[in-house]
Amino acid sequence: MPASTPLPQFDDVLDAAARIAPHARATPVLRADALDAAAGASLLFKAEPLQHGGAFKFRGACNAVFSLSDAEAARGVVTHSSGNHGAALALAARRRGIACHVVAPQGAAAPKLALIAAQGAVLHRCEPTIAAREAMCERVRQATGATLVHPYADARVIAGQGTATLELLAEAPGLDLLVVPVGGGGLASGAALALSGCAPGLPLVLAEPAGAADTLRSLRGGVRDVDFVPDTVCDGLRGTLGEPNFRILHGYGAEVVAVDDADTIAAMRLLLTRLKLLVEPSAAIALAAVLAQPARFAGRRVGIVLSGGNVDPDTLPWAAR
Amino acid sequence: MPASTPLPQFDDVLDAAARIAPHARATPVLRADALDAAAGASLLFKAEPLQHGGAFKFRGACNAVFSLSDAEAARGVVTHSSGNHGAALALAARRRGIACHVVAPQGAAAPKLALIAAQGAVLHRCEPTIAAREAMCERVRQATGATLVHPYADARVIAGQGTATLELLAEAPGLDLLVVPVGGGGLASGAALALSGCAPGLPLVLAEPAGAADTLRSLRGGVRDVDFVPDTVCDGLRGTLGEPNFRILHGYGAEVVAVDDADTIAAMRLLLTRLKLLVEPSAAIALAAVLAQPARFAGRRVGIVLSGGNVDPDTLPWAAR
Repeated sequence: MPASTPLPQFDDVLDAAARIAPHARATPVLRADALDAAAGASLLFKAEPLQHGGAFKFRGACNAVFSLSDAEAARGVVTHSSGNHGAALALAARRRGIACHVVAPQGAAAPKLALIAAQGAVLHRCEPTIAAREAMCERVRQATGATLVHPYADARVIAGQGTATLELLAEAPGLDLLVVPVGGGGLASGAALALSGCAPGLPLVLAEPAGAADTLRSLRGGVRDVDFVPDTVCDGLRGTLGEPNFRILHGYGAEVVAVDDADTIAAMRLLLTRLKLLVEPSAAIALAAVLAQPARFAGRRVGIVLSGGNVDPDTLPWAAR
Repeated sequence: MPASTPLPQFDDVLDAAARIAPHARATPVLRADALDAAAGASLLFKAEPLQHGGAFKFRGACNAVFSLSDAEAARGVVTHSSGNHGAALALAARRRGIACHVVAPQGAAAPKLALIAAQGAVLHRCEPTIAAREAMCERVRQATGATLVHPYADARVIAGQGTATLELLAEAPGLDLLVVPVGGGGLASGAALALSGCAPGLPLVLAEPAGAADTLRSLRGGVRDVDFVPDTVCDGLRGTLGEPNFRILHGYGAEVVAVDDADTIAAMRLLLTRLKLLVEPSAAIALAAVLAQPARFAGRRVGIVLSGGNVDPDTLPWAAR
């Protein structure tokens, strides 16, 4: 998405909500007394592990796929993805009955690749670099005429991801803050759009791995940091903040909390034990950000988007330590 | 509860719903595509692991505690429980600000005892036999004047547990069957009462461990089987079907499916992987019953009450095998 492209707006989130309503789940908002007690706050968890495909990614993918004209749709869609977006796009494409090509780097999590393949998508493996992924994607696009649906730097995807926050705000009125994870920034910038229409000025806190804190540096410096090597257990948050995502988050005035992996893993265990919900490290990081800064959240009513739950219960990260 | 005591009725479930509404959570109904595909049916899971205390037991305990007169309440409550009911009664008593005594047998699950103690209840340990538990309970009752709140053979408890089914029927209309676990029969007989008012004649299927199948034998023979030694991983389902519970379930015409522990453990793993929800074996057994009889449930819309989720994620039963 070139820097000159107009950014999606709040109305695009409303359009997305209507477009995906027949397909996506309105996931529940969950609570747990023990987590409220641990945080000294009221925590309202939007449970996207219960979304189709096990992550919020289905919202954006679905909005993109059902935005296509029939002629575009007939040529299919293509993306590169470390997992959840690829699975989501495959699911959405299957629902519309069109082809889906997914470029997946070596090292992507096995359960996520299995989800993608199970939906009938064509997998194209490549080296785990951004450059290799984009090159392979372009090759497939030129060969098939498929429409590229970028995992996060895409207006339709951003608007779709915003519907998670839209639903949370409707079901849990009176929030004092919203906390979401940030990687490429699809979920986060969608949240900013939803807030801008429903609760303008509500603080938006982004939870980011300390080992992949490009968003922290980018928003602080006012310039996108695109040159870093991610080192984090949060496999969904290793990407670089997208360009439109940066502009939206910068414009909204989102704040970033950098979180150590050890805190994220502890939060993941707490969510399983207390909320009974299996979430990915990339989702648990949002609770970890809250627990790491008790003074900031004490006594507040805090919305938290738990982004996904595609993780192998036999290799939970705390058991491996 | 003597055999002459009148049984609770549908109206008691409605009264319970109003009484506990300020205190209990209206837990969500969850779904997972992969589980629907595995069963060849539409499965709607009432998620009681998300109830206060992590199990449906809070409903019955809360109804009992808030049914007491002020004079009765001032003397507190007492129960014997392998865990979840004890924790639930402690929570409910704390909410009303009254004393709670819990008689817990040796061998009860540590996370459940911790929950009880954390609520300020007085723990009284005893041998793991029904006789020892009842004797200790009676001793406490005589010393304190506390009201006995039996885990399941109690009209107020049964009516309270019925509210889980009441909510499920309201949120998921058009069910073809309802499946619930059965141990002492509090949840199951409450479900029968709720069905009798809201969906009379709807088949009620009880999932019972093959190693503790007294309900199967009792309903088949028309006489309560009270002489058996339970052998099952389902620690919440080792009790003997209660007398009023038997009468209600027999009157409703409930059917029983006996389930092997291995199937229950496989279902527990499936629920964690696919529904992302951590449930006890005593809850997972209900899904196991559905998966064990595909022909019976194929193409149907099936309500399933997942009863609780108090289990240690570090000692999951499939990892121990």
